[in-house]
Amino acid sequence: MILGLVGCGHIGGSLARALRQAGAVTRVIGHDRDPATAERARELGIVDEVGLPGGADVIVLAVPVLAVPACARALAARPEAVVTDVGSTKLGIVRACEELLPRFVGGHPMAGSEHSGPDAADAGLFRGRRVILTPTPRTDTGALATVAGLWRAAGATIVEMDPERHDRVVAAVSHLPHAVAYALCASLADRVDDLRGLSAGGFLDTTRIASTPPAMWIDVFLDNRGPIVELLDRYGAELRGLRDAIEARDATRIEALLSSARAARAGILG
Amino acid sequence: MILGLVGCGHIGGSLARALRQAGAVTRVIGHDRDPATAERARELGIVDEVGLPGGADVIVLAVPVLAVPACARALAARPEAVVTDVGSTKLGIVRACEELLPRFVGGHPMAGSEHSGPDAADAGLFRGRRVILTPTPRTDTGALATVAGLWRAAGATIVEMDPERHDRVVAAVSHLPHAVAYALCASLADRVDDLRGLSAGGFLDTTRIASTPPAMWIDVFLDNRGPIVELLDRYGAELRGLRDAIEARDATRIEALLSSARAARAGILG
Repeated sequence: MILGLVGCGHIGGSLARALRQAGAVTRVIGHDRDPATAERARELGIVDEVGLPGGADVIVLAVPVLAVPACARALAARPEAVVTDVGSTKLGIVRACEELLPRFVGGHPMAGSEHSGPDAADAGLFRGRRVILTPTPRTDTGALATVAGLWRAAGATIVEMDPERHDRVVAAVSHLPHAVAYALCASLADRVDDLRGLSAGGFLDTTRIASTPPAMWIDVFLDNRGPIVELLDRYGAELRGLRDAIEARDATRIEALLSSARAARAGILG
Repeated sequence: MILGLVGCGHIGGSLARALRQAGAVTRVIGHDRDPATAERARELGIVDEVGLPGGADVIVLAVPVLAVPACARALAARPEAVVTDVGSTKLGIVRACEELLPRFVGGHPMAGSEHSGPDAADAGLFRGRRVILTPTPRTDTGALATVAGLWRAAGATIVEMDPERHDRVVAAVSHLPHAVAYALCASLADRVDDLRGLSAGGFLDTTRIASTPPAMWIDVFLDNRGPIVELLDRYGAELRGLRDAIEARDATRIEALLSSARAARAGILG
């Protein structure tokens, strides 16, 4: 199987490496809007050939979410190819791509890191992780099976849900934590000199995702605006509740909030 | 040297284990307000003897911060002992304990985990970590050297600062992140069934500290109320700025905030 990769960064590169290692692809053709990134992916052995993935059997769009529909339009002349994406939002992408590509399947690997670029590509990135696929009544079942098979070959487990539910779920477990971590660091921006070198593990972990390059997150925040703003409002209310309880020295209310938080975390982790 | 341990939990137990491993103590006498915890520490070989640490050369108060002054009062009959604590707040503790104990030194190891209890005690917990000591003009220099020596024997590096600065710094790099993580989980409490098993690494890391048992954090939030409420207000304003920029689809403002956050994090990590 020939894999076409549009976007040769961390996620696309990791998937190509994983599929090659699993023997699931015979050849990878890679394109990137930045020619140096595509060339670097070729040097690293992630792609065999730099070029437009016209002849590929399966094409993976591993680009920032707002760039996915334009990539899909560029592929509309290849209706026989199975096309999927890796974006952190799904409703807008699936609606746009289903209009253009009869064999499109929306996908979102629940993995990643604060790293970026082909040099960070890691064949083990998806091992033991979940990939959400978002088929709709229009989805080609053969294409869905092909995409699911690729992710399984990369070591992932498939979870299916509709695009709307995906966007609400991921707003809660991924987009909100990113917004929270970015705002936390930004609120300390004018105290950096005072705090330099004095943080411990709690700060490190809580803010790890705030070192992700902004480009992809601007797109995600814009594309999943509705669910994210709703959750930020709920979160803001919870935060004010904690702030007011602390100011009022209300140990009972603080205890209730902390215990509820601990139980919620344990439940979400499953 | 005989070490007296008041509080045989995760932090106190880890310090005792580290000092024993380093050969820095000959005997450990442990007390806990929960007799079963002290007995468990003895079973685990963390303490040699359960009892009040009256005859110890150095006494470590490893109890929730609001309990420290009462422990200090109980030790006031032993003015020759070097006494230190491990609390996450310092101003109130140092003021109270300096009145009672001529050889008191405030301390705060910048290490810990979401675990608790003597079974989680780990001799390597402080290796390569910072311990903040907060001497004042009243601090006995011999006692300060003794306490610094113990922490160095446990593998830590000493940073000295006054208690007020400690509380402002730690409010930013530790207390605020804990409040943020607890509020994040609490705001999702009514969606646990919908989200169960669907989180990824970002949620896991961002919220790790929200699984710390509430008891110690209630004390910290109450004791360091002023700096924490001030930071929560600044953070809340930053968060509203991000929320409004997302709602207004203002990519430029989002980009500015995300970039500022990334730079601040890199600067704080040093």
